[in-house]
Amino acid sequence: MNKIYIIGVGLIGGSLALDIKSNYNNAKIFGIDSNQNHLEEALKLNIIDEKASYQDLIEADLVVLSIPVDKAIVELPKILDLIADHTLVIDVGSTKFPVCNAVEHHKNRHNFLATHPIAGTEFSGPKAAIKDLFLKKTNIICEIEKTMFKLQEKALQLFSDLGMRIRYMNPEAHDKHIAYVSHLSHISSFMLGKTVIEKEKNERDIFDMAGSGFESTVRLAKSSPEMWTPIFKQNRVNVIETLDEYINNLKQFKTLMESNNFDEIYNEMKSTNHIKDILKGIA
Amino acid sequence: MNKIYIIGVGLIGGSLALDIKSNYNNAKIFGIDSNQNHLEEALKLNIIDEKASYQDLIEADLVVLSIPVDKAIVELPKILDLIADHTLVIDVGSTKFPVCNAVEHHKNRHNFLATHPIAGTEFSGPKAAIKDLFLKKTNIICEIEKTMFKLQEKALQLFSDLGMRIRYMNPEAHDKHIAYVSHLSHISSFMLGKTVIEKEKNERDIFDMAGSGFESTVRLAKSSPEMWTPIFKQNRVNVIETLDEYINNLKQFKTLMESNNFDEIYNEMKSTNHIKDILKGIA
Repeated sequence: MNKIYIIGVGLIGGSLALDIKSNYNNAKIFGIDSNQNHLEEALKLNIIDEKASYQDLIEADLVVLSIPVDKAIVELPKILDLIADHTLVIDVGSTKFPVCNAVEHHKNRHNFLATHPIAGTEFSGPKAAIKDLFLKKTNIICEIEKTMFKLQEKALQLFSDLGMRIRYMNPEAHDKHIAYVSHLSHISSFMLGKTVIEKEKNERDIFDMAGSGFESTVRLAKSSPEMWTPIFKQNRVNVIETLDEYINNLKQFKTLMESNNFDEIYNEMKSTNHIKDILKGIA
Repeated sequence: MNKIYIIGVGLIGGSLALDIKSNYNNAKIFGIDSNQNHLEEALKLNIIDEKASYQDLIEADLVVLSIPVDKAIVELPKILDLIADHTLVIDVGSTKFPVCNAVEHHKNRHNFLATHPIAGTEFSGPKAAIKDLFLKKTNIICEIEKTMFKLQEKALQLFSDLGMRIRYMNPEAHDKHIAYVSHLSHISSFMLGKTVIEKEKNERDIFDMAGSGFESTVRLAKSSPEMWTPIFKQNRVNVIETLDEYINNLKQFKTLMESNNFDEIYNEMKSTNHIKDILKGIA
């Protein structure tokens, strides 16, 4: 793989570019981005070697589509129109059903592989790009059977070189599960931040009291609304379901508090402590 | 300060013991704990130098009460009965009104200082004790005017030696504010863990998909129910208020999702991003 085109040189696209560079000496990284400032930044930071445009995609060995998910479903069909037979196109978005659906009948569907590397931080843009972001992280791959054999191989080699472990899933299952372990976490964090900010007009007073516990639960509330709004939109039905269950659990906890049932509150926490072992399992 | 008695040799008491040892060469640390295993562990880990009992408290220069808050309000009056005139007694619990209230009319009230070091981890017991846990952390002190001058000085010197910054507050304000930045965070995290565990009976499938975002929002769900149940009980009214507001914000977010009002969802997240600057301010 010599010619790599990164469309969207932000946190994920930029970090992938850095890892590809350090793994493949011959790789040349081209950047495409609707945000010219990001492109210039990516050049300065040596994330990309050159700026490029869609007209150049016919040259590409690999195209990485790392833009907000609403734009991805619009751009992906255009990109598949422009590539060569040997080009592998991957996306890295946090929803998988809409993107798979958008190109289901595209004549070059077999050049595309739908992926979701479970990696990131609460920051965004090229400055947020970091090396080894994907090391030991999980990459969810959807509908691998719809990608041509040679390009399946190429993609799996790339992910293996980056140190990722692979899980295969259908897009519907991916979107349902990820609503629980990722999308809901973001909403719970955003709403926690909102609740505290709203309450405390005199910020210093309260935030002086915030420790590492608050910081970790509210960390995701720093995330980019540009990225997350379209994710919630595309995964609307699943996310609403998780919110329903989360709200019900909170209401039930509140009812236990109101009825002074602290034995049951103890039990609730005790059984949720089990998350310790589960998280150990994934570490 | 030569003779230090730590009552409750867990995460907070144990970490304080370690820091006091490294700051004061002459300090001898005595441990008192209803859990004999914890005492033995604390001895082995060199957190304490000797085991002791309430009968020895007459010898103490400093007594640190670091046990669950329901037990603290029972034990503190007994401890104040047993100490000498020069003894400083501090508690480190996460609620301040009940403990201040419990000793309001005690004849040795002026030997006591109510404090809340905003520091900790999700772990508990003597093994969880770590050095420098309190460095650059905030310590909230309540009703300092009720502690005798000499002991105020002694306490402030200790906290300064440990590298803490001090904030003064009345117990009611402390309990109200801390409900937002600490107690609510724990409930949001516990209920997030519960929601995800409940949904996903086949753990591997889903937790393979969990990334650092889920891990940080769910971290506090590992916390000790023994410690947190009495905190929620003592701060019941304030915690219920924060829960009400949190649940309402989540419901409102859900309504926006249901009515496809993603412009407003974007705005909600954008304005909560402000938490970035606030957290920078406290770091």
